[in-house]
Amino acid sequence: MSFVHKTYLRPRYADTDQMGIIHHAKYFEYFEIARTELLRSLGLPYAALENDGYLLPLIDCYAKFIKPIKYDQLIRIETNLEDFSGARIHLAYKIFDDETNDLLSEGYTKHSWVKKINLKPTRPPLKFLEVIKSK
Amino acid sequence: MSFVHKTYLRPRYADTDQMGIIHHAKYFEYFEIARTELLRSLGLPYAALENDGYLLPLIDCYAKFIKPIKYDQLIRIETNLEDFSGARIHLAYKIFDDETNDLLSEGYTKHSWVKKINLKPTRPPLKFLEVIKSK
Amino acid sequence: MSFVHKTYLRPRYADTDQMGIIHHAKYFEYFEIARTELLRSLGLPYAALENDGYLLPLIDCYAKFIKPIKYDQLIRIETNLEDFSGARIHLAYKIFDDETNDLLSEGYTKHSWVKKINLKPTRPPLKFLEVIKSK
Amino acid sequence: MSFVHKTYLRPRYADTDQMGIIHHAKYFEYFEIARTELLRSLGLPYAALENDGYLLPLIDCYAKFIKPIKYDQLIRIETNLEDFSGARIHLAYKIFDDETNDLLSEGYTKHSWVKKINLKPTRPPLKFLEVIKSK
Repeated sequence: MSFVHKTYLRPRYADTDQMGIIHHAKYFEYFEIARTELLRSLGLPYAALENDGYLLPLIDCYAKFIKPIKYDQLIRIETNLEDFSGARIHLAYKIFDDETNDLLSEGYTKHSWVKKINLKPTRPPLKFLEVIKSK
Repeated sequence: MSFVHKTYLRPRYADTDQMGIIHHAKYFEYFEIARTELLRSLGLPYAALENDGYLLPLIDCYAKFIKPIKYDQLIRIETNLEDFSGARIHLAYKIFDDETNDLLSEGYTKHSWVKKINLKPTRPPLKFLEVIKSK
Repeated sequence: MSFVHKTYLRPRYADTDQMGIIHHAKYFEYFEIARTELLRSLGLPYAALENDGYLLPLIDCYAKFIKPIKYDQLIRIETNLEDFSGARIHLAYKIFDDETNDLLSEGYTKHSWVKKINLKPTRPPLKFLEVIKSK
Repeated sequence: MSFVHKTYLRPRYADTDQMGIIHHAKYFEYFEIARTELLRSLGLPYAALENDGYLLPLIDCYAKFIKPIKYDQLIRIETNLEDFSGARIHLAYKIFDDETNDLLSEGYTKHSWVKKINLKPTRPPLKFLEVIKSK
C-alpha cells in the first residue's frame, strides 16, 4: 500500500509570531490536522478510535522549514502513511503553497498505539487493520 | 476576606503574533497561570484538587487591553479572589509592567466547582473552604 | 445594515485540555477565524487590509461558556458585525453545534482601526466603508 | 567551549491535551524558553538581538518523547549550545523531571542568523561572537 492524503488549510492569525510568519511549533498542529483528516478519509475518525479506547501518542517528530508560511496562505499538506504494520505507525508530511506548489516544509511523526485505560502499547485496532488491508 | 496574590512572568516568543505584540487569547493563559499560583500559595495546588476529583471550568471571562504586552517583558499579575462562598468562584486580574507599574490589562474569570466524574456542579472542596476561612 | 456571517470549523486536537474539552482561550481564536472569514466574504481579506497598512487590535473581549466544545465537533460560528461606523468595530459571535443547533458559546470582541506604522487610531479604510455601505 | 544552561518551568494548564499530558507541539515552546534563558544568562537577551536587527529562524527541529510531561510538573531543561561558529547555531535540549531526574524528552533545533530587514543570512552579531569566545 502507498497512500497519500491531501488536506487544505489556512493558518490562523494566532499561529503567527512577531517574525511575521507562522511559529515553528504550529507546524506540528498542521501535521496533526492532516493526520485527523487522513484517518477520517479512511472512515476511521480519530475521535471514534479514542472512544474505542485507543490513543496514538508520539514517539518522536521532526520538521524542516524550507520557506516561511504566512497567515491566511492556502496550504496543502500531503500525508503519507509510511509504516503501519505493527504497534507503531509512521507518517510523513509535505506542506505546499497550494497556488505556486512551492514546497514549504517537510516532516514526520512516529506514533505507537496504546490503550487509553493504562497507556500501555497494544496491537492496532482491528478496524484500522481491515481498512488498511483493503486499500 | 480580601486576598490579592502576585504572580510574575515573561511572555513566550510563541505568544506573540505578527502585530509584534502578545496575542489577546494568551492573556487568558496568563490569568490561568495566576490562578494556579494563587491556589498554590494557599497550599491548594490545582493539580491536587483535580486529583481529589474536582474541576473548575469557566462560566465566562473578560479581558480589556489597555497597553500592548511585548515578548519577554516582565509582567506582574495581581489576582483578587472576589467571590468564593458558594458553588462559584470569581477572580479578577490586573496585569502590570513590573518595572513601570503601568496597567496593561484587566479582566476576570468566573468558575463553578464541578465533579470530575460527571461534570455536575458541586460544593467546593472542604479543604478549600477551610483554607479560605482561615485567611 | 444587519449582517450575519456563518463559519464552520472543527477544533484541533491541540485545542483540547486535560478536562477533555476545548480550552477556553481557544474560543477567541475561533472568533478570530470567524472574523477573518466574514471579512473575506465581504471581499476584504484581513491580510490585504494589513498590507494596506491597517491593523485591528482588540479593545476588549468576552466569552460565555454554555456547553463544552469537543475535539473534532463540527461547529458553526455566527458572526454579527454590530457596530462599524466610526474608528471602532464591534463584533458579536454565537457558536452552535452544527448538527444539533445547540448554542455552545456566545461572546464579543471590540476593535479599533489603527495604522500599522505607528499603532495610532485612524479612520477605517475607505474600501471597508464602501463595502459596508453597499450591503 | 562546552556550555550547558539549566532552565526550570511548570507547564501551563493550556499546554495539556485530552490525553491528560502536555501536547507534543508545546515541547518546542519549552525549548524556545530554554534558548531565551540561555541567551539571557550570556548577557545577550534575544529581545535585544532582535532590536539590533537580527533574527534566528529555525532550519529544522526534532523532539523525542520518552515519558509524558504533566501539568504543573516542575521540569528542568538542560540546553547545550553545540555549534555556533558560523552563520548557523545548533542547540540540543534535554528535559528532566526536576525531582526524580527522569529524562522525559530530548531534542534539538538548528537556526540561521538572518537580518530582520530582508530575512537574508548574515554573520552572527559581533556581541554574540565576543561573548562566546570569552566562555
